[in-house]
Amino acid sequence: MNSNPSIDSKIPKAVVSRLSLYLRELQQLAREGAATVSSKRLGDRLGFTASQIRKDFAYFGQFGRPGIGYHCEELVTKIRSILGTDRTWPVVLIGCGNLGQALLGYRGFSPQGFELVAAFDVADELVGRQVGDTEIMHLSRLKEVVQQKKVRVAVLAVPAEAVDAAVDAIIQAGITGILNFAPVTLSLPKQVGLVEVDLARELEQLAFTVLQQDDG
Amino acid sequence: MNSNPSIDSKIPKAVVSRLSLYLRELQQLAREGAATVSSKRLGDRLGFTASQIRKDFAYFGQFGRPGIGYHCEELVTKIRSILGTDRTWPVVLIGCGNLGQALLGYRGFSPQGFELVAAFDVADELVGRQVGDTEIMHLSRLKEVVQQKKVRVAVLAVPAEAVDAAVDAIIQAGITGILNFAPVTLSLPKQVGLVEVDLARELEQLAFTVLQQDDG
Repeated sequence: MNSNPSIDSKIPKAVVSRLSLYLRELQQLAREGAATVSSKRLGDRLGFTASQIRKDFAYFGQFGRPGIGYHCEELVTKIRSILGTDRTWPVVLIGCGNLGQALLGYRGFSPQGFELVAAFDVADELVGRQVGDTEIMHLSRLKEVVQQKKVRVAVLAVPAEAVDAAVDAIIQAGITGILNFAPVTLSLPKQVGLVEVDLARELEQLAFTVLQQDDG
Repeated sequence: MNSNPSIDSKIPKAVVSRLSLYLRELQQLAREGAATVSSKRLGDRLGFTASQIRKDFAYFGQFGRPGIGYHCEELVTKIRSILGTDRTWPVVLIGCGNLGQALLGYRGFSPQGFELVAAFDVADELVGRQVGDTEIMHLSRLKEVVQQKKVRVAVLAVPAEAVDAAVDAIIQAGITGILNFAPVTLSLPKQVGLVEVDLARELEQLAFTVLQQDDG
């Protein structure tokens, strides 16, 4: 299945990451009532040059119209389609300790189209327990559930010592994308995509913010 | 205390956010043995134009040398100083439910100079409990601990209904920066800086990654 036939597969990760930024700003512009926006104005709001923005969008096709700019809502729809957040992704959670249980209560998944359909662990004291709407199942049932619910994405929230077993199970089950919260660097076969979560950027922004408060 | 006397206080948030990206890439370049890097090469690695990179750095001073480029390790030191992650920040955690307890075990704080020195909650079943090296204290003791340990940063991990009381206590205690994991939008007096954590960007990157796997 080629969902985005026109998209160059060599797009730098940083460009895809910036699509998220552009999407947020275009959604904000649309809320503010703007029908269209120029690359200059979009750039000014984000501190980007207009040519940087045009260069990034050029990876994905021709979006703007000369003299008019980008149509905000159209471009929101287009970017969500490129990113793949315009559809529903059934997701499984692997690891139901403190972090996993916090993620089971996280409300930010569904607006992005991610629906947590099952949660797994191996600990006797967790398997069978109900957390919110979700019953924690034993990891040995992963493949069966993944096939039944056509799951392609796993959220990994296990401690370091449990990572190898979890990753083996994930690969065996045919999962193609992992969002990794586990405190280790994963090496995966190339058919499994990986997105790592770490708070380094947020912590840096926080430190800078506190310094700025001191200056103000 | 003006820690960064030369820094323009009107720097767009997006520029500060890109400093984190540049820092990560420069650290990687240094690990690969590169002594210097040009704005063109740094840009190519991140999908930025060279002029975008020069424009961003220009907010903070003159870093590169004509014909030589940027000295990687020097620039790493400089950016860490600008961001404020070259020093230690004592941090308090407010909210010790599942997410809070997961954060108490998070190893990513200390490499960024953040040291969790105390944790607070209001629930009888949590106050007094020991989590790792940290004893959970009642929120009523926040101001005392903040003054004693010269804390300026709080990590907020409470449920929505507990946010107002927590924010009041944080402001009363004289905290100047909040890292917010709580599922609400905070409105704060201008002397308190705010960094929000949400997984939207990571989830978008994840969806894109899975689409790309399908194409490959």
